[in-house]
Order: sequence, then structure tokens, then C-alpha cells
Amino acid sequence: MTKDLRIIPLGGLGEIGKNMTVFEYGSNLMVVDCGVMFPENDMYGIDLVLPDFTYIIENQDRLRGIVLTHGHMDHILALTYLLREVETPVYGTPLTLGIVKRQLEEKNLKHRADLRTLLPGEGIHIGPFKINPYAVAHSIPDAVGLVIETPVGRVVHTGDYKLDETPAGGTRTDMETLKRLTKDGVLVMLGDSTNADKPGRTETEQVVADTLDSLFADAHQQRIIIATFSSLLARIQEIARLAEKHGRRLAITGRSLLENTGLARELGYLDIPDQVLMDIGDQTVPADRQVILATGSQGEPSSALNRMANGEHRDIKVNSGDLIIVSGGTIPGNEEDVGRMLNKLFERGANVIYGALAKVHVSGHGSRDEIRIMLEAIKPRFLIPAHGEARHLHLHGQIAQEAGMRRDEIFILKNGAQWVTDGHRAWTEESLALDDVFVDGRLVGEIGEIVMRDRQRLSQDGFVVALIPVNGRNELVGEPQFVSRGFVYLRDAGDLLEAGREEVKRHYRRGSHDLRHLMENFFYEHTRSRPVVLPRFIQV
Amino acid sequence: MTKDLRIIPLGGLGEIGKNMTVFEYGSNLMVVDCGVMFPENDMYGIDLVLPDFTYIIENQDRLRGIVLTHGHMDHILALTYLLREVETPVYGTPLTLGIVKRQLEEKNLKHRADLRTLLPGEGIHIGPFKINPYAVAHSIPDAVGLVIETPVGRVVHTGDYKLDETPAGGTRTDMETLKRLTKDGVLVMLGDSTNADKPGRTETEQVVADTLDSLFADAHQQRIIIATFSSLLARIQEIARLAEKHGRRLAITGRSLLENTGLARELGYLDIPDQVLMDIGDQTVPADRQVILATGSQGEPSSALNRMANGEHRDIKVNSGDLIIVSGGTIPGNEEDVGRMLNKLFERGANVIYGALAKVHVSGHGSRDEIRIMLEAIKPRFLIPAHGEARHLHLHGQIAQEAGMRRDEIFILKNGAQWVTDGHRAWTEESLALDDVFVDGRLVGEIGEIVMRDRQRLSQDGFVVALIPVNGRNELVGEPQFVSRGFVYLRDAGDLLEAGREEVKRHYRRGSHDLRHLMENFFYEHTRSRPVVLPRFIQV
Repeated sequence: MTKDLRIIPLGGLGEIGKNMTVFEYGSNLMVVDCGVMFPENDMYGIDLVLPDFTYIIENQDRLRGIVLTHGHMDHILALTYLLREVETPVYGTPLTLGIVKRQLEEKNLKHRADLRTLLPGEGIHIGPFKINPYAVAHSIPDAVGLVIETPVGRVVHTGDYKLDETPAGGTRTDMETLKRLTKDGVLVMLGDSTNADKPGRTETEQVVADTLDSLFADAHQQRIIIATFSSLLARIQEIARLAEKHGRRLAITGRSLLENTGLARELGYLDIPDQVLMDIGDQTVPADRQVILATGSQGEPSSALNRMANGEHRDIKVNSGDLIIVSGGTIPGNEEDVGRMLNKLFERGANVIYGALAKVHVSGHGSRDEIRIMLEAIKPRFLIPAHGEARHLHLHGQIAQEAGMRRDEIFILKNGAQWVTDGHRAWTEESLALDDVFVDGRLVGEIGEIVMRDRQRLSQDGFVVALIPVNGRNELVGEPQFVSRGFVYLRDAGDLLEAGREEVKRHYRRGSHDLRHLMENFFYEHTRSRPVVLPRFIQV
Repeated sequence: MTKDLRIIPLGGLGEIGKNMTVFEYGSNLMVVDCGVMFPENDMYGIDLVLPDFTYIIENQDRLRGIVLTHGHMDHILALTYLLREVETPVYGTPLTLGIVKRQLEEKNLKHRADLRTLLPGEGIHIGPFKINPYAVAHSIPDAVGLVIETPVGRVVHTGDYKLDETPAGGTRTDMETLKRLTKDGVLVMLGDSTNADKPGRTETEQVVADTLDSLFADAHQQRIIIATFSSLLARIQEIARLAEKHGRRLAITGRSLLENTGLARELGYLDIPDQVLMDIGDQTVPADRQVILATGSQGEPSSALNRMANGEHRDIKVNSGDLIIVSGGTIPGNEEDVGRMLNKLFERGANVIYGALAKVHVSGHGSRDEIRIMLEAIKPRFLIPAHGEARHLHLHGQIAQEAGMRRDEIFILKNGAQWVTDGHRAWTEESLALDDVFVDGRLVGEIGEIVMRDRQRLSQDGFVVALIPVNGRNELVGEPQFVSRGFVYLRDAGDLLEAGREEVKRHYRRGSHDLRHLMENFFYEHTRSRPVVLPRFIQV
């Protein structure tokens, strides 16, 4: 048994999402975070992408626990899949565990949950690892970074963070504690790279609070509808405070907002007096005394604000004169959905304020200067840029070099890489082969590259199934039939299909039985499209 | 015959692209611009979207000509489709006509071209309309706005413009001429709304020139690879100038860049001395003396820079240490393509500079302050915000109201609207019913909503064609067979399909012949997916 520390990222490198890292020492495995990735636009039909758990399942007898840094879905939601396979304690702060518990309940997995509370300032032991969590500022409360004492040296896993000095009701990143915990040196840091291409510092949440305050102040005789992320509880707290300040009452619509605000009030993370809240659609409250807090900052089809934009929300009909504030940054890939929703809201006559027009959102991740401050504060011997696409990891590495690190002290890894250290030197060993695990409805991991490629082709040009009636001697006996969708509109394409049938018959009779190739060429020749072609011989 | 002026936008309102506007007076039609729209991400398989030409074709005997404001594809490319149907003179500046001519040649339509030169400062007559073009600053040279004298009053069509005072080799918008031409008042303005959600003024092209200059100056021992739009000739001129200034030679790669720079040099819009140019891949020029100008600022799959990112470019292999500059803003919808290309370039070790990191691109459209300056300069009686999605049109209207216009003087129109004026009042009449005309390979207008919906469904969950063998009495005689793609991977899904076959047989024998519905429910029940299901009875 080696006396090396092994760090294996299973997700979160080269992508935004499915954050998950294995720490291994001797016969002990510990995992930090267990998140999902939301599909990119060309991952057709996919609901979620999970990390590949194979290594953990194969080594579950050595698994000592999972530590969660915060309650965002890209850090926790894969737990509801992993815990079907393995039993292990899960450590997290109270809000994080509250969110996890709800997710497990929804999936009928609560009995699998051995949830254990993690609190900043209170160290815990997991096998040979001692975990010291410290508070960080992020776009969800109760987020922590981790200082991890291992037998070969100290590791810092920053989680997601920003260095917000005035987080408007939220938490500051506890740099004092972090510096104290790391004053004897840090062997390796895994650091958030998300905003490594954003210059300067990420603006403080206070500027959003100030912007919202002045928008609320100017909204005379207007109903206010405001959309934000359901996990952005500090912002939600501020919105509730502003509602009260400006003599309005707050209604909440959208499933995830109702759930998260309910949970957060219960656990004491959100302080909204009952008399500030109102039922959605309560006619006794004048419109200009209302603030409607809604899901939909990403234009998600079933979100509350998008339903309003489509005129399909049960309780809220957008009127000319409503002030609508979209208080959430657009996640890359969602631009078209958000744009369409904004267009429809404007077309309904609303006065819509979004990121291009006012500072109604700031990121929860630190920018280049904050990344540099973090590097200089803890001066790690080695750096593993984490949490970001490849460009962000490389740019994080550039910042570290500017801060004085050597190129060979910086490890730009891919998921599955095995980074190994004996406390003095560090190297990589052969990578684990990982697959993206696609969730499509009830299918988990059953949709692979082949099905995805088929969907891609079907989306472009549809398909043609050709039914070829043949007798026992494989002679053509009757008319070939085409079953097709997504290629051309069949009622308008009679000539094309008739010509196709003749082509099939002529070639088949001549003895050419590679009808797939023949038809692919025929359709391409006539349309410059390449539908999926599937000939089937029918014995009649 | 009425004595009213009628303005009918056929495209460009509520969307970015396919700009086209009909002007009609008495028995005379004139068209301004004739562009395409590039498909949104969920327009599966579509190459281009054209305006609906029906009205123009039906009234071609009254069509007196088409005026083009500039040579961007969203203002000219639909000409190669319209001119198959109608014959009419096309007016444009020399560069614009040069680009049009090349497009027509590619489509073997040159014989249809009656191209007539338009020059700023030289008015022309088209039927009852007198057109006075004036120069505008935009991201392609030789762009103009139009002052159109009509029998009922003066119209200004701004085209695309910005008010760049230091356009770095480009042209300034000629506000002096515009003011002189409009000093007796303007009845209606059609104004560019693209950046109506961008505060302040669009930055000047000079800041890009300055940024590039300092990047070039710092690029010791590095090869420089720079991607930009092939129509951004002022920037290309600047890049050539900087190459010369910094003692480098310029190679060009990518079809549209080669074509556009060739044309522009020929017509005198681009001044690159022969001795500055080099052949791509010329080994006699040291790498650190090269600037490679490439297509690919949008991450387009077949562009030169994307091929380099994929290691598939014939002449250029990206090396560690190359300086790569992506000098083009990301068009909404292209974020994922651009992001992936950047990731791959970083992974090849290049030092990549893009918009997030330095001011290497500015927009060609004026922002809110410029829109306001334009409104105040020409003080139109009526305003039709043009060229933008719905939110941009509405925000343009808001700016006009802030500048003192009344709500009822501002017309937020949709494509097909008929805006009518007698020179005093203005109103709208019943809209033309327009369809988006999809181009898919050789198919123009044959792909409609039904095929698009099928492609959408196929992309999500694939299809299952069920072949049910029946005899002359419609009795089941044998095993149903499934032909499927994009649903589940068939080799791994034997149990599901076997159960599906049994389900079909059981229900069919019981007399239930609605097999489509039955199978849809069966698959949904087992997978939560909804493939397209098509049962076919096979007489055997």
C-alpha cells in the first residue's frame, strides 16, 4: 500500500457542472461534491449528465464519506443517483443537507441517507483526512471551502467562492480563518476557475441591492415582477426587505422558489415576516403594492416568468405597465431562450429591465483579481485549477504563473486524471477512462454515443424507412413503401418519393441489393439532405 | 389609386436578419435590402431563412427596383433567390454590388443582374421615389443610409450604422449631409435598433486598433493567428497595417476571407502591398514574422480557426506559444461553438485572447446614446424602429419617448404590417400573412412547420416504426418487428423491445387496433421518453 495521496477529479474539469473529486490515501476514499451537469444545446433529449461513478462503486468498501461544499445542483444532485449504488455518510452544512434531504425524499431514497452536519470552525475526521470547513461568499448561503489535512500534507479545496466584502445580507469569505488554517503551508490547492476570464473583481451583491432599491423606488403605480435563481437566497432576502421597505407585499410563484424559500425559512436562512407574504393572485392587494417573485431568469420553458410571457400563467397576466426585472445572469447556452422570453414580455407592454440595461445581477464566482488574491493568500506548492471549461483552467494557470508559480507546479487536468503526490513531488498516473452518463427520463446511462449521433442526424434531416416486399426467392413482389418523418413533407413530395420508388425497383431488379447506399445517394442528389435511410425487406 | 405611401416590412422586425422593406406609392413598388436570416439553434437542419417574397412576386409588374444599404448577408443574400423569380434593377454602392455579383455568379444567376451603382451624394430616381444615399459608419465599408423623397413626404431609412468618430480607417457617418438633406423635416424614420439595450455609445474601432497594436508589440517570438469577420474590411486593413508596422507578413486562410479580401483589393477598398502578403504555410518566413488572418470568429465548424482547433487545418498546426486573437463578438446563439473552439485552442497550448480578456472587438451598431442622437438630429414626425428583436424595437421606442416623441407617433410593427401615411396622419392596415421560408439544401420553402416539429421530436427521443404482419382478414400472423433509431440503443434494450412486442400482440388480439397510442404509452411508461411511433400493417 503506497503512502501517496491521490486526487482524481471525476467531473467539473473542462466543463461547467458535475463537480466531483475523489481523495484517496491508502485504503481510504473520500469524495468532495457529487453534482450533475445540465445538457448543452446539442445533447438532444438529455435531461442531466452524471459523473461516471464506476471507480467509486468498484471501491465502495473503501469509501469513507462524501463532503459537500454547498447546495447547488452541480455539486449535489448526482447524490440521488450515487446513493442508489453505495452507502456512505454525507457531510454538509445545514442548508446543504436540507436541500439534499428534499432531493432524496423526492426520489424515495431517504432511507439511504446518513446525513451528518458540517459547520465552519468545527473540524471532522473522515478516515485519514481531517476536514476543516471555512465559510465562503457564494450565490447560495452556507457554502464552505475545505482545508483538508492529509498524511502527506495540507490540501485546500476552495469550492465556489467570491471575495465579496459587502455581500448584502450574505456571508463574507472567511480569509482570516483560511489563512490561520494554512499558515504552515499548503501542498496543493484545487481552486475555482469559473471566472478566470473576467478582469478585475466580481462586483459586490450590494450593487444589485442598490439597483433594485432604486428600481423599486421609481416603480410608482407599477406591479413589480422579479425573476431570480431559487437558490440565490441572499438576493431573495434583499427583495423581501425591499418589498417591505417600499410598502409592498411579496408573492412567490414557481415550484423551486416555493420549495427553497420554504426550506430556508424553516431552517432560519431567510427572514420574511408572514405579514409581508401574500398569496399569489390575492385580489385584495392593489397591483402597485405587489412584488411577484418568480422562477424563470433563464427563460426555462416551464418557469413562472416564461409562462407569464406566453400568457399561460394561472394567476398572473402580464399587463402593460408592469415592471419586470430579470435578476439573474444568462448561463451560456440559454441566450436564445432568455431572448425570446424577453421579447414576449415587451410585446405584452411590460417595462422589462434585464442585465444589459441595469446591474440587476452579479456572479457568485470571483474574477481574476480574486483568484490572484486567493493564490497569494495561501501560496500553494501545487495548483490544480478546478471548476471550469478548459479555457478557464488554463487562464487560472496563467494567473498563477503571473503570481510566481512555475509552470511545472500547475496541473491542468482532465476528468479521470490521477494526480499523485508523496508530499514532496507530484505527478500524474494513467487516467481512468470515464464516460458521460446521460439521464434521459428513466434511462440512466443507457443512452450512449450511438443514440446521440442518431438523434443529431435525425434532427437535421429526419428518416426514411423503406419497406421492400420480396418473396421467398428474394424477388421484388409489389411496390416499395416509404415511412418517413422530418425529411420532407410527404404530401408535397409525391414526385420525389415516386422517383425514389422507381429507383429502388430498377436497381433491385438489376441485382443491386445495397439499397441503403443507393437511396442515400438518390435523396442527397435531389435534395442535398441526408436523412437516415433504413431499408427493410418484407417477406410476403 | 390611393395617394398614400405604404411601407411594408417583409423581414428584419422581431428578429436579427432577413432585412427587407417594401415602399409602395400608387402603382410603384421599391424594395430596400433583401437579406437572409441564419437559423436559430432549434431550427434543425435549416441552412437559411428567407423573407416571404409572395407579395413582391404577385406585384412584380409594379416593382421598380431594389436598393441595398450595404453588403452584409442579412441585407443582400436573399437576392440570389428573389432574382430567380423577378427581374428588376438592383442599386448599391460599388463594394455592395461587387459582393452581390459574386453571389449571383455562384448561383449562375449573373444574367439576371441589372446592377446599378449608387454613390453617396448622388441622388437617383426609382419611380416616384428619389433616393439620396449618405455614408454611414458600419462594420463593412461602403455602407449607406437612405433619405427617400416620396410624394407625401421624406423618409429616412438609416440602414445599419454607428456614430464612430474615429473609425480607424473606416468611414464616419455623414451627419452633416444627413442634416442638410433633412433640414425641412422628416415624415418617418426607420431606424436601426440592434443595440437599443446597450448603454452609452458603442466604442470606437480605434480602441480595437490600439489593443491589437499593443498585443502585436508584445508578441515577441510568437506567431500571431487572428480571426475576424470576413466583411470587416476596416479591421482587416488595420491588421495588415499592423503586420507591416511590426515587421510581419500576412497570410490569409478561409474561403470567405480570401474572396472578400480579393474583391476588396480589386475594388480599392483594401490596401495591402503585395510584399506584405505571404502564402499560407510558406516555410521561408519565420513563425514569429507571421500574422495568419483566419475565418472562425464564431467557431463555425468549417472555418479556418476551428479547423486549427481540431488539428484539421491543412497548413497551420497550432503550437504552444502561438498568440491567437479572436477579434469578433460572439453572435447570440454561437456561444457554445465559440467556447468549445477556445477550449481546444487553449488545450493546444496557445495563448488565446478573446473578448472577455481584451477589447479586441466592438459592435458595428450604435448604442442607446447614438440612437438618441440620431432621433434628435433628424426629429422624425413618426418612428418605425427597425432591425432588431422585439425587445430592441420596444427599447428604441422608449428612447424616442424620452427624446420627446409621443407614444402614438411610434409604430412597433411586425413583419407583414402595412404602415400607411398620407403625409399627415399614419395608420396600419391589415397585415400580410407571411411565412418564414426555410432553405434546407436544395429545398426552398418545402420544409414547413410540420417537418420542423417532427425533427424537434425526433431529436429528443428518436422514432420506432412497428411493422405488424397481418393476413387478409387483418389477423396477426407472426412477430411484430421494430425499426428504431435515436430512442434507445437496441442491442442493450432487448427486454424492453420484447415486452413491447408482447404488448402489441396481446392488445391486437384483443381487438385494440390503436397501436400508435398503445405503444406511445407503453414506451413512456417504461422510459419516460416519447419517441415518434409509427405502426405499419404488412399484408403477408
